[in-house]
Amino acid sequence: MARTAKKRSVKAGLPPGTLVHIGEKTGEVPKIRIVTYSDKGSSVAEVEKPEDCPPLEKDTGGVTWVDIQGVTSPETMARLGEIYRLHPLLLEDIMNTDQRPKIDAYEDYLFLVIKTLSVNSAEKTLGAEQISLVLGRDFVLTFQECRSAILDPLVERLKTGAWRIGKSGADYLAYSLIDIIIDGYFSVLEQLGEWIDILEGEVVSSPTRKTLLSIQQLKREMIFLRRSVWPLREVAGSMERGESVFIQRATRVYLRDIYDHAVETIDTIETYRDMLSSMLDIYLSSVSNRLNEVMKVLTIISTIFIPLTFVAGLYGMNFEHMPELKWSWAYPAVLVLMALISACMVIYFKKKKWF
Amino acid sequence: MARTAKKRSVKAGLPPGTLVHIGEKTGEVPKIRIVTYSDKGSSVAEVEKPEDCPPLEKDTGGVTWVDIQGVTSPETMARLGEIYRLHPLLLEDIMNTDQRPKIDAYEDYLFLVIKTLSVNSAEKTLGAEQISLVLGRDFVLTFQECRSAILDPLVERLKTGAWRIGKSGADYLAYSLIDIIIDGYFSVLEQLGEWIDILEGEVVSSPTRKTLLSIQQLKREMIFLRRSVWPLREVAGSMERGESVFIQRATRVYLRDIYDHAVETIDTIETYRDMLSSMLDIYLSSVSNRLNEVMKVLTIISTIFIPLTFVAGLYGMNFEHMPELKWSWAYPAVLVLMALISACMVIYFKKKKWF
Amino acid sequence: MARTAKKRSVKAGLPPGTLVHIGEKTGEVPKIRIVTYSDKGSSVAEVEKPEDCPPLEKDTGGVTWVDIQGVTSPETMARLGEIYRLHPLLLEDIMNTDQRPKIDAYEDYLFLVIKTLSVNSAEKTLGAEQISLVLGRDFVLTFQECRSAILDPLVERLKTGAWRIGKSGADYLAYSLIDIIIDGYFSVLEQLGEWIDILEGEVVSSPTRKTLLSIQQLKREMIFLRRSVWPLREVAGSMERGESVFIQRATRVYLRDIYDHAVETIDTIETYRDMLSSMLDIYLSSVSNRLNEVMKVLTIISTIFIPLTFVAGLYGMNFEHMPELKWSWAYPAVLVLMALISACMVIYFKKKKWF
Amino acid sequence: MARTAKKRSVKAGLPPGTLVHIGEKTGEVPKIRIVTYSDKGSSVAEVEKPEDCPPLEKDTGGVTWVDIQGVTSPETMARLGEIYRLHPLLLEDIMNTDQRPKIDAYEDYLFLVIKTLSVNSAEKTLGAEQISLVLGRDFVLTFQECRSAILDPLVERLKTGAWRIGKSGADYLAYSLIDIIIDGYFSVLEQLGEWIDILEGEVVSSPTRKTLLSIQQLKREMIFLRRSVWPLREVAGSMERGESVFIQRATRVYLRDIYDHAVETIDTIETYRDMLSSMLDIYLSSVSNRLNEVMKVLTIISTIFIPLTFVAGLYGMNFEHMPELKWSWAYPAVLVLMALISACMVIYFKKKKWF
Amino acid sequence: MARTAKKRSVKAGLPPGTLVHIGEKTGEVPKIRIVTYSDKGSSVAEVEKPEDCPPLEKDTGGVTWVDIQGVTSPETMARLGEIYRLHPLLLEDIMNTDQRPKIDAYEDYLFLVIKTLSVNSAEKTLGAEQISLVLGRDFVLTFQECRSAILDPLVERLKTGAWRIGKSGADYLAYSLIDIIIDGYFSVLEQLGEWIDILEGEVVSSPTRKTLLSIQQLKREMIFLRRSVWPLREVAGSMERGESVFIQRATRVYLRDIYDHAVETIDTIETYRDMLSSMLDIYLSSVSNRLNEVMKVLTIISTIFIPLTFVAGLYGMNFEHMPELKWSWAYPAVLVLMALISACMVIYFKKKKWF
Repeated sequence: MARTAKKRSVKAGLPPGTLVHIGEKTGEVPKIRIVTYSDKGSSVAEVEKPEDCPPLEKDTGGVTWVDIQGVTSPETMARLGEIYRLHPLLLEDIMNTDQRPKIDAYEDYLFLVIKTLSVNSAEKTLGAEQISLVLGRDFVLTFQECRSAILDPLVERLKTGAWRIGKSGADYLAYSLIDIIIDGYFSVLEQLGEWIDILEGEVVSSPTRKTLLSIQQLKREMIFLRRSVWPLREVAGSMERGESVFIQRATRVYLRDIYDHAVETIDTIETYRDMLSSMLDIYLSSVSNRLNEVMKVLTIISTIFIPLTFVAGLYGMNFEHMPELKWSWAYPAVLVLMALISACMVIYFKKKKWF
Repeated sequence: MARTAKKRSVKAGLPPGTLVHIGEKTGEVPKIRIVTYSDKGSSVAEVEKPEDCPPLEKDTGGVTWVDIQGVTSPETMARLGEIYRLHPLLLEDIMNTDQRPKIDAYEDYLFLVIKTLSVNSAEKTLGAEQISLVLGRDFVLTFQECRSAILDPLVERLKTGAWRIGKSGADYLAYSLIDIIIDGYFSVLEQLGEWIDILEGEVVSSPTRKTLLSIQQLKREMIFLRRSVWPLREVAGSMERGESVFIQRATRVYLRDIYDHAVETIDTIETYRDMLSSMLDIYLSSVSNRLNEVMKVLTIISTIFIPLTFVAGLYGMNFEHMPELKWSWAYPAVLVLMALISACMVIYFKKKKWF
Repeated sequence: MARTAKKRSVKAGLPPGTLVHIGEKTGEVPKIRIVTYSDKGSSVAEVEKPEDCPPLEKDTGGVTWVDIQGVTSPETMARLGEIYRLHPLLLEDIMNTDQRPKIDAYEDYLFLVIKTLSVNSAEKTLGAEQISLVLGRDFVLTFQECRSAILDPLVERLKTGAWRIGKSGADYLAYSLIDIIIDGYFSVLEQLGEWIDILEGEVVSSPTRKTLLSIQQLKREMIFLRRSVWPLREVAGSMERGESVFIQRATRVYLRDIYDHAVETIDTIETYRDMLSSMLDIYLSSVSNRLNEVMKVLTIISTIFIPLTFVAGLYGMNFEHMPELKWSWAYPAVLVLMALISACMVIYFKKKKWF
Repeated sequence: MARTAKKRSVKAGLPPGTLVHIGEKTGEVPKIRIVTYSDKGSSVAEVEKPEDCPPLEKDTGGVTWVDIQGVTSPETMARLGEIYRLHPLLLEDIMNTDQRPKIDAYEDYLFLVIKTLSVNSAEKTLGAEQISLVLGRDFVLTFQECRSAILDPLVERLKTGAWRIGKSGADYLAYSLIDIIIDGYFSVLEQLGEWIDILEGEVVSSPTRKTLLSIQQLKREMIFLRRSVWPLREVAGSMERGESVFIQRATRVYLRDIYDHAVETIDTIETYRDMLSSMLDIYLSSVSNRLNEVMKVLTIISTIFIPLTFVAGLYGMNFEHMPELKWSWAYPAVLVLMALISACMVIYFKKKKWF
Repeated sequence: MARTAKKRSVKAGLPPGTLVHIGEKTGEVPKIRIVTYSDKGSSVAEVEKPEDCPPLEKDTGGVTWVDIQGVTSPETMARLGEIYRLHPLLLEDIMNTDQRPKIDAYEDYLFLVIKTLSVNSAEKTLGAEQISLVLGRDFVLTFQECRSAILDPLVERLKTGAWRIGKSGADYLAYSLIDIIIDGYFSVLEQLGEWIDILEGEVVSSPTRKTLLSIQQLKREMIFLRRSVWPLREVAGSMERGESVFIQRATRVYLRDIYDHAVETIDTIETYRDMLSSMLDIYLSSVSNRLNEVMKVLTIISTIFIPLTFVAGLYGMNFEHMPELKWSWAYPAVLVLMALISACMVIYFKKKKWF
């Protein structure tokens, strides 16, 4: 997933409410699933065309959940918008899969945008898909960016009919959906935590330039992650404070749970960021340390041999009148002198703790 | 566009409300366009002099939009101020094109200052023009810093008469205007995103001092951009909260859309800033790394040859009593010794992982 | 204790309220202790199975405290939840020992999550155990992550019966419990302060790479500590503001005391973080300083001997026509020249204050 | 002007309300100017002694402005305090010219402290003088630290009598005074902007240690500037919100203008700070770059000549049995070998992009 | 004074309200001074034992001030607590001299904790003593950590009986006490300012490692200072907002003065911190600069002499067939060549601006 803004400009100049898909996948046929449940039981059906979606009836005593996977076709979206009387701006937001998580209160429903996160282990990057959720008095609509199995466990649980959502309304269903999505965040955080642990070992034992690039890439993923999760806190907080008529008192305690999860996720992200910053410091100091070590080797070798070479050069001069050259013990004496100079140097470096 | 404060001081000492143009372009004749529309239809006219602007009539059942392009002439502005009964401070703000985006509530109208952004691809800089917007009960005035085509799509849409602004009032027109301007921000962000992506590749593969200066320049443009966009959040937020009588309930949902766009723009700017900071870290560590590499080459060459040169110097001495010089196998032995010293050094460096 | 997120993902896809233990220790049999006291006296009992826990009776005039140590078994927790009518989400939070400190108001009780801290002196790391506290009108339940003696002093004080908790209600008992936990924080801070003092001496006198790693590790522990303590401020503040019916007016002055302690703990943590950052600066400048010193030694030796070696090399040339070679005073003159060059260099370095 | 705290301690131990001048200039005779205006006309007078100041009469239908320049004499201030019934703490604040800008509401008047800024172009420093302003229902008192002409344009405008302040009250006069002072800030910001632009050119093209010190000095002036301007935002905001009875509704729109100016000033200061920080980064990277360059030159020269010198040394050895020495083509062969070694090195450096 | 947390852990496990002295001095006999004043006059007395303290009588029409110096003895404190009916937690706070400044409202009095600051010029460190202040309707109690003369000027002023505190109540006395303490802060800030000025000169002209340690130590003192002063803002703000019945309306304007002083103190501390950070930057860049200089000297000397030494070595080779050796003008030609090489190098370095 690109980290810099893309494609949004195709909409410049178009009237507000024009439906244009902004995102990556196109051309996929949307999959539409309709789940209804009431005290009497539950049913799961799949329809082929948006035209086949049943309109919402009031006071049926049941809850209807329509799950649309794939939001790239403007026609489909316009059709669904008509059937469920959705505001044009809302449809625009659903199709623009580059949205920030948010909650908007409309007259007849609440509208939520949330991100599901996934990990690409090979490239060590994160991916995000957008799920839009419309919560009405007795219905929930979910719009997923593309086909995905993330909400399937909930469909299974609903199928059994024995689950206590049977006693609760659409708001509890919405909570269950959000809960599944946020539980997915923890897997992502664990994967990131593992990568950080590995990097940490690497940075202490044998840091290379590749380590630096990995740290920086992880930092960048954290920026991306934070951007996807941070607004969720606000969303959950606003829901919990119970400003909406679509959320019953009894469900609020569950929404508080979501708020807590969002806060914990953000907390962990901040901790990871701090840890990555610390690693960068260690890396940089490692580079300095290695430069130090290189310089020490050079300095030790140079300072030991340069004086010796000078002495050798001295007695390599061709002056005719150099009395030392004729003394028979001069050569061994010079060798001893050289040994002494070396010894002094070595002692000096030992004292300086250079080895 | 200059990034440091300019020209503002010409006003020091003048009484408040004195009209002085503060900005770049001067001497241009303003272009004035008058668009009216009601349930019955729409008309677009252009007038030559400010005197020809029709005064506002109340309860006509229609909406009037006067678009003035070019605000450099104090006389024109004073004339317009009289016709539309604008507060002197408001006129002063319009002519000072160095304003911060803001919203001011007057008794008879709302006053907004917004920036349109543009990209100078050649110099990799951003430009900003100021648009001032006065929103009354059934009229909208827009004052642009200079001639520009940015609002033309809206004029075209109004001309057709088929657009649903016909059913909405002046506040929806104002929203449409702001929407066009903010949509333009996304193009700018995409362009910036592209530059950042290119720079990122450069900083990882072959960073030069020019890369650093480019990073710094982009950072500077981000500061400028942020300063132009940040206050917009407040402006949109204040409009959405519906504190003004000039904005109808039905329009508020649209203003929330603008608020969301402003927040997203700011979010993206912050992300870009973080990415540029990371790049700076990578650049700096690259410089350190290269120094390390240079030093390693020097150290390897020096530490291999300095001892050898010493040995050569040793046997270049002219002592008469150096028995080795006469041994026939001495020369090859010394060569072997030198080879051994070199080998030791190479092994040492291999172990240190210096190559 | 791991610093990166762990194990949480086992819950992904499970329905909310499913009891799964998230934490480190498993398989331990929980220890359950029941303390009751009223104006007439106090009693302490221990039960083996959760089934033996007495249900709460209303209006007994006394206070019951049930202390459960070890929360790993879902069955036990479900059983306790039934006896004391605890909300499923609450039980979930208790078993997830990776919670952030928090306070949740339920209809029949207040629910608090707090951390107890401990120091592992050998590895210089911190540990945290979670204590969950349920405060009702006349009962207190405490759930500890594993067996620990931290609350024992309070049991001893209650046993004597002479303590003035006899006159106070369950809220005062809860306060006393929190007070004991927070008092433990100060020991941890003192231990950290000692380590920081030692590190500070080290970083000034003889910093090594190990010092750096210790600083970074302490910084990391501070991040962890802050994350455990920071939310407590909010918890204490919310209790003190008296938003709950379970806390009497008279107890609030004590809760203010807890709030003050939390603020002081956070203050101290921030101070330590600042100190560790300063140390890092000192360390890094030490590394630079040492590089400087190494380079100076190399430069001094090189610049003194390189010119001398050149002079020696000059008179080692084998040209036939070098008149100096024949002068009898040439050799001593060259030696004097070399001495002069050295002296100049030494004076130059003295002036530059290189030694 | 000193940037660190000074002289304030002379007041330690004295009772509150004791009048002691804290500031730089002393011994100057204060200049007192009295301006009155009403619907009938305006008059400007100058008095010599504070005793000659006319007491304030109520309901004269006019506005009186007393401008006192020079606040160093406790006697004068005490006298003025008596005439105009000023609170002792207010007098103390006026004489302590080291105040932070602030607004205090007293029962009979509003009290404002503002700073006027000036630029010392030679030393590239900023200066600040304090102006205290007392705003009553129909009078304004201004106390300037020393004689200055900053308010003279307003006196001139009042003299003409044709200015519309004639229709407005004391609050509009106060606004005009503050407006003049804040307009002066923009000149200061422009001057700073010019210095920053110059420094920026310098830091990119030829940074020296002097550049660094200039950047740091400007940063320091920004700290000082920010401290003088930042609280003004609060002051203007508090006035605009209209919490005082001394400010009429009609004047509030003007105060909003002042608030906007203050916010813009702060914005610009923050932008400058960011720009200076960027410059520091560029400077530091320049220093690193230059070190790199120096090292490269050393490394290139050394690694080319060290092996050559070794070869030359090799054949300078005095072994009797060195067959090569006798070959007639040996010398040219060695020269070719040396050329080859040099060429290899140069190619290696070219490949590494070291030139 | 230690900068890391100390001794607090002795209280872990003790019941809340247990009196234990936490601080540095012990064993001193407390000095108790009783000052009373009313419209009729004033009296100052000293008592030996806490038992001799007169109980507080209501409605005497006068104000009583009891000043206790030395709070180390639990018995004394318990006795005083009984006489003046002080809450056990309050007594605990007084004896724990490691408190954060704070204000607590009790039913019968306000409780304040403030710090007095002092400078240890020899070690360039700051010291802090705690003063606790209890303000009731007609009495003030002050508890000082140890004997000190800081409040003596107020006693002297009260003795004269002519001071206008005679007309004011206990709240004005409390204000006067706090005013004296805060006035003392300015002396400390001036002293710090002086040290900073000296360090600044040092860091620009001749920075050494000692300079760095001094900067770091001052930074550390700033952390300590900030921690002692920062909460005072909150304390003063809360008093000024007049939330307490113990503070009369007329006194509030004085408390605003204290608030202003606290804000100014904090402002100055922040400015100092910024200045110290700038100095650190300058220091670090100085170190880099010096390394640069050292490297330049090495590089200049090496690159000039290494080629010359090579040339000398070249003609020191012992090949039999080296025609140049026999040419009579060869030696002077080589000398000229060497001079040319040196000249080229020098010109190259001049162009690079290395000298």
